[in-house]
Amino acid sequence: MKIIKTPQEMKREADRIRAAGKSIGFVPTMGYLHAGHMALLDRARKLSDVIVLSIFVNPTQFAAGEDLECYPRDFERDERLAKERGTDIIYYPDAKSMYPDGFQTEVQVTHLQKVMCGIDRPIHFKGVATVCAKLFNIVKPHYAVFGAKDYQQYLVVDRMVQDMNMDLEVVPEETFREPDGLAMSSRNVYLTTEERRQAVHLSKSLKDAREMVERDIRSVDVILDGVKKELQKASLAKLDYVEIRSIPDLKLIEKNIAGPSLLAMAMKFSVARLIDNTVLLGHKKPR
Amino acid sequence: MKIIKTPQEMKREADRIRAAGKSIGFVPTMGYLHAGHMALLDRARKLSDVIVLSIFVNPTQFAAGEDLECYPRDFERDERLAKERGTDIIYYPDAKSMYPDGFQTEVQVTHLQKVMCGIDRPIHFKGVATVCAKLFNIVKPHYAVFGAKDYQQYLVVDRMVQDMNMDLEVVPEETFREPDGLAMSSRNVYLTTEERRQAVHLSKSLKDAREMVERDIRSVDVILDGVKKELQKASLAKLDYVEIRSIPDLKLIEKNIAGPSLLAMAMKFSVARLIDNTVLLGHKKPR
Repeated sequence: MKIIKTPQEMKREADRIRAAGKSIGFVPTMGYLHAGHMALLDRARKLSDVIVLSIFVNPTQFAAGEDLECYPRDFERDERLAKERGTDIIYYPDAKSMYPDGFQTEVQVTHLQKVMCGIDRPIHFKGVATVCAKLFNIVKPHYAVFGAKDYQQYLVVDRMVQDMNMDLEVVPEETFREPDGLAMSSRNVYLTTEERRQAVHLSKSLKDAREMVERDIRSVDVILDGVKKELQKASLAKLDYVEIRSIPDLKLIEKNIAGPSLLAMAMKFSVARLIDNTVLLGHKKPR
Repeated sequence: MKIIKTPQEMKREADRIRAAGKSIGFVPTMGYLHAGHMALLDRARKLSDVIVLSIFVNPTQFAAGEDLECYPRDFERDERLAKERGTDIIYYPDAKSMYPDGFQTEVQVTHLQKVMCGIDRPIHFKGVATVCAKLFNIVKPHYAVFGAKDYQQYLVVDRMVQDMNMDLEVVPEETFREPDGLAMSSRNVYLTTEERRQAVHLSKSLKDAREMVERDIRSVDVILDGVKKELQKASLAKLDYVEIRSIPDLKLIEKNIAGPSLLAMAMKFSVARLIDNTVLLGHKKPR
């Protein structure tokens, strides 16, 4: 397994791989790897010859007051886990090589970035789109695999790739969950013991919603009422939003769901802000 | 000479050219070709094996009330001129294929886009950066040649290419001028006969400035006073700005020029808005 630290070297390596006729599968992460990331690596392996994992806690997607400084980091552990899982290359740049002096270009996905998590985190998706555009130009992947837990992020990046005519496929991989249903996240380490117990209500509420839809309930009000009742059991958390929106354009659905729809939520515990989602009705599961 | 109209087909063609080990030289234009464009094509030819010219009057770089509708167009003439000059491919997309329904991604070069022409045209360089990012991903050039007349555009695009880690070289080509010194521009057709006579004072003022610098004058006030006196002779025009700024970061120079500096101006005639510039002191001429 190679560890590459500069954009120049990563580009040269990507050129060599492509010149040899091999395909590149890419898993961009902020590190502190967990089982969800392992599932992304496995998916990339199925799709392509060479697996590149990037580890970069991207400062431009954090606002002032967010958890940039305390975001969990453990490169040695990440290195070991990535190697065990068959990663070929870790791209591990520092902020200075990604954002040298004079850097000033921003990529924005103007509508998708504004809703859902974009309300509480207005600069977040601009940072994500910009760093992904850079990473795609550096790593030159054929496939980039994103976790469906961050479904809005997946849609933002996929839209950016289409709009910018980039030559890669953005692949969503199903959310990996703890045995009790909690979606895996590096930020779960922020939860206190009692918060961790209550966090289960996010995934439970999604299960409730899927069951309602299976019972032919289509009313957004009825589904959201059920979901909110379940979420209220997480008494230590404050609900940020829970909404049902269309896929892929994230328009708010107000009356009845009739096509591919995303039920998504964010809840704020003392430190951790948890998100989760499920696709309702008529949308293929992530492949 | 091939004429290609869709991004998909242009990408496939670019892939074929690259797979054959050939280099691509790219000249992005809005058409209505003149001798300045011919110089860009010649430059591209010197640098690379295959020459791609794009003709696309990009709507997103025009604000409401600007000249999008009346911008001069003559594809048959452009086709003939491009062919005579040895162009291999014209990429000639329509707006629908460049900006399909749901398109919503913007690329901004946040500081460089705000000064000089960015004051009068606040959305202009965002449109330029976005369409160039798209065109570069579609045409996949090794070199993209831009006219130095639009020096701010060249700097914006070059910065974007660096910041986005794109694999191409942005090449400025010296401004091509009429015998009396007027910089070639498709917009010169908007000038009335008397305005055309007065337009010569832009290039004359640049010559005055270069002569002052050759006489070891370094004071920005002194140089700009001389320049403005010359520009006042264009009595039918309103001066938009005339400034001396650093290269490549376009910071305003207030006292004395000491390094590579851009003297740039914009003047508004009845319909035509003309721009011109020259590099003062210590900066290599465009290669």
